Order: sequence, then C-alpha cells, then structure tokens
Amino acid sequence: MGIHIGIDLGGTNVRVAIINKNGTVNELLQEQTEPEKGPVHTINNIIRMIETLAEDEKVEGIGVGAPGPLDPYRGVILNPPNLPGWEEVYLVDALKKYFSTDNIQLNNDANAAALAEAQFGSGKEYNSVFYITVSTGVGGGLVIGGKVFSGAQGYSGEIGNMILNPGGYQYSNLNKGALEGYASGTAIGQRAYQLYEIEGGAEAVFELVSEGDQRAQRIVDEAIEYLAMGIANLTHTINPDVFVIGGGVMKAGDLIWVPLREKVKKYLYPGLVDKVNLQPAALSGDSGVIGASLLAQ
Amino acid sequence: MGIHIGIDLGGTNVRVAIINKNGTVNELLQEQTEPEKGPVHTINNIIRMIETLAEDEKVEGIGVGAPGPLDPYRGVILNPPNLPGWEEVYLVDALKKYFSTDNIQLNNDANAAALAEAQFGSGKEYNSVFYITVSTGVGGGLVIGGKVFSGAQGYSGEIGNMILNPGGYQYSNLNKGALEGYASGTAIGQRAYQLYEIEGGAEAVFELVSEGDQRAQRIVDEAIEYLAMGIANLTHTINPDVFVIGGGVMKAGDLIWVPLREKVKKYLYPGLVDKVNLQPAALSGDSGVIGASLLAQ
Repeated sequence: MGIHIGIDLGGTNVRVAIINKNGTVNELLQEQTEPEKGPVHTINNIIRMIETLAEDEKVEGIGVGAPGPLDPYRGVILNPPNLPGWEEVYLVDALKKYFSTDNIQLNNDANAAALAEAQFGSGKEYNSVFYITVSTGVGGGLVIGGKVFSGAQGYSGEIGNMILNPGGYQYSNLNKGALEGYASGTAIGQRAYQLYEIEGGAEAVFELVSEGDQRAQRIVDEAIEYLAMGIANLTHTINPDVFVIGGGVMKAGDLIWVPLREKVKKYLYPGLVDKVNLQPAALSGDSGVIGASLLAQ
Repeated sequence: MGIHIGIDLGGTNVRVAIINKNGTVNELLQEQTEPEKGPVHTINNIIRMIETLAEDEKVEGIGVGAPGPLDPYRGVILNPPNLPGWEEVYLVDALKKYFSTDNIQLNNDANAAALAEAQFGSGKEYNSVFYITVSTGVGGGLVIGGKVFSGAQGYSGEIGNMILNPGGYQYSNLNKGALEGYASGTAIGQRAYQLYEIEGGAEAVFELVSEGDQRAQRIVDEAIEYLAMGIANLTHTINPDVFVIGGGVMKAGDLIWVPLREKVKKYLYPGLVDKVNLQPAALSGDSGVIGASLLAQ
C-alpha cells in the first residue's frame, strides 16, 4: 500500500499533493514554478517536494497535469505558452529516474480536471463527461467510462481553437474567430479595453454588468453567445451525458449561467432542447492535483 | 450458428442482406421504401425480405441503419426528413414481434457506415475513427474501440449542424452557417443555381470545375474551405486516429481531395499539421448493410 501523488504544474505555481483513495487531499505542498529558471530547476523542486511528502512510504503512482501542448503518450511537455522557454521537456522520463514506479503519467491540466470532475465531482453519475474550463483560456477534456480520451496526438478537448466565425476576431496564435478569442476571461478583458477602455479585466467587466452597464453587457452577451455555439457544436459532435463547466469566468454565477442555458437551446436540434445537461463544476481549486493523481490510477 | 442481417433503410430504397462474419454480403434483396405508404407497409416488406433470405436458418442478429433523427436506445425512428410522415416509429419492437432474437439494433445510417469503415474499411487499423459522409447532407459517426459512440441522446456525429459562421448561409432547418449548408452536395448545387444559375446539381458543378469554370470553382472552394474548418474543429475536439471520408461529393477525386488536404493544415495547431490522417472511404455502397449488421454483433 503506497501513496499516490498528484502534481498540478502551472505557469505560476506548482502544487504537489498526496491524494487519498476517496479523492481528497491528504497533504499538499505549493511553490512558485519560476519557469524562467528552466525546466531542470522546476523538476528538481518537484522531486524534492515529492520526497518531502512521501517520507518513507512507497510512491505507487505519480500523475502530472500541465499546460498544453504536450504529448501524453511520450510524457513530453512540448512548448506551452504558459511555460515560456520550455521545449520538448521529457518530464516523465526525468521523474522515472528518481522514483521506482513505472506508473508516471502526464496529461494536460484540463484533462486532469475533467477526470477529477468525472470521478468525484459533477460528472460522477455519468458515463461520458465533457469538461469545459472558461478561465484565462478556454479548454476542455473528454472522459468516457472513467478514462480520459486524449486523442491520437493528445489534442482532444482543445476547444479554445474551435472556429466559430472565420471572419471574426483574431486572438493570440489561435484560429481567427476561435472560441477562446470570444469567451475566455482574457478575451473578455481585452475586448472591454479595446472597445470601451474598460480596465481591470473580466472581473471588472462582470462587476459593471451587475451594475447595469450596457457596454459591459454587450461584451458578456457576445462571450456567452459564442460559448453557447461551442456547446451546441460539441453536442452535435459528441453528445456527452453531461457538460461540466468550471473556471474563473463561470464564477460570475447567474450573470453567465442563466443566459448561457437559454442561448444554448437556440442552437440545438429540437429533440435536444430540454435534454442537454449543463452542470457547474463541483470541485474547488484542488481538482488539479486530484485529477492529476487519477491519471496514474 | 445463425445468420446476421443488415438493413439499410433509406428514403428511396430499403436493402436487406445476410452479412458474412468477414464483412462481405452473402445475399441481398432490395425494394423501394415507398415511405409515403406509411411505416407499417415498409416494415411488413422488411419482415418478408428477412424471412425470404433466412429460409430455415436462425436469425441471430438484426441491425438497421436508418436516417436520423432516431433514438438508438429505444429503437425508435423519430421524424426524419427523409422518411416524411414517419413519427415515433418503434421499429425495433415491431421486428422483435416477428423474430426470436433479442439482438435487434437501430442506429443512424452514418453511424452504421462508420462502423463498417472502422471494422473492414479505411479505419480498420485504428482505435478511434471519425467517419464523415459528404453527400446529399453532411453526417458523421464516431467509433472508438470497435464500438459506435452514439452519445446521450444519439446525436453524436450530427456534424452537418456544426456552426461555422453565425452570420452565414441559412440552409434547411439547420443552424445558420452550419457545415451542411456549405459542403453538402445539395448545398453546392443550390448555391451554384442561386448565384450563377448553374443547373444540374453538384455533379454539374464539379464537371464545370474540371473544365476550368471560375464560378463553379468559387463555389467548390468555399465548400472545401468549410469542410476543412469542420475537420479542424473535430481534430481540436476529438483528435481521432483517422478521419475516413466518403459520400458522393468525395467521388470528385483530386478536385476535392488535393485542396482539402491543404486547407485543413491552415487551421490546425502547428504540432498537428503533418499528423492529421485523412483517408477516403474504402467500402462501396454495401457499407450501409454491412455496417448495419455490425450494430447487432
């Protein structure tokens, strides 16, 4: 009986935790990632944190959720915008040198969160779960029968790049008119600034909406409209048993959930209008480490 | 050792066949569907055709591929545009009254064809296969590990309704700017007529393209552009091991395949550009009955 480690490797912080069988956090360490100091620095910190947590216990499995793009099959972090300067980092191999388990898995952070929600959160009653995070970016993960469906090259769930309007807004290195360019927190903040010089990012925009500001409302309406189209497209492609939707933007509550539920219906085949199941994510910020540990179980 | 029956129920013809274990057609009967005479008429014809084929042998499984929308879980044909007047037809229950097997399955025709291609066609080497048919309409089917993934309400693969341009072309009862409104054979023919009074449907349009007609070329370019965006969206959502693409429009050969392969690359994440696997469908018109029989195996 050894322990299971979950690692949530983000651009700002890295969190390492022992996760219990029932999906709760037993013990957790957090440090700054400092990606600019290079992958060796961060990986050494991760190894030390695992050793600190494990003490004398056997490490049975280690799962890492990290920003994409990455290759889950080879355990390689490719060149994620959120870990600048990291390129072709063989993270799984590096960890295998230090720990005597073969069960070390890497997948992207949205897939890890999807797994956590499917196992212990809002998706736990369902066979097929599509998790969507609307946060700094827009990402997703598909879980079928308790397993992440990563796809041929690990790009399943990269819905931020879904084209919804080829004549639309160009955002970051994504496709023109892609979902993330309309619905992400960053995009909402950027558009509010560009169109109306509203400062303070998505949070300030939602604050203004709650005060009845019409300009802020227009930007949020547009974001929700595109998110609704994206969900309709996913329904007519995968038709999962449930959509679990999390991320910072969804914390705006009724301001976003009420219109979202209405707008999705507009774009569905009549037979689906009252059947598509949208649920808020249930797990707190710990879903990253919990889901990561599930990758290796 | 009994026999397996595959039924391809279309708006024009219904084909009933005994399918061998290796996926070949043993014996086949075809009649007109005559949907206007009502479902009882057609179902009685189907029962008679099965009995004629089976003679004294035991029927072990019956699979039916039919136009959507339908409910694969209850075995009910809902209200398909291609079978006008049919509404809530309990096809599986009707067949169960006549045949002593519990193994009678209904799914939509694109899912049946997907299964045939995954098992015996261009997808046979792969775990996850997304089949696309570009024909009168645009449809699709997802097969993972040899099984059709139908989705919660059976709407998985209904990619004809994928929104690609919310300010775009309104076609049939689909979403504005949906894939089928640009890329289907019907849409190509309609747009050629509306814009340039070109008659003769998609076939005539491709004939003109091969003669160097610039107007026809523009319409085909647009159709391929949207098909490419649709495939990119599916890649960033599911990232299947292979796309198998069939249907009448794809018979235009290099006129469509060469530009399609180029255009898809434009819309992919750089890491995927040379990796997305597009293959022409391998099976002939028999994929309907073959795939249908696989539904019940």
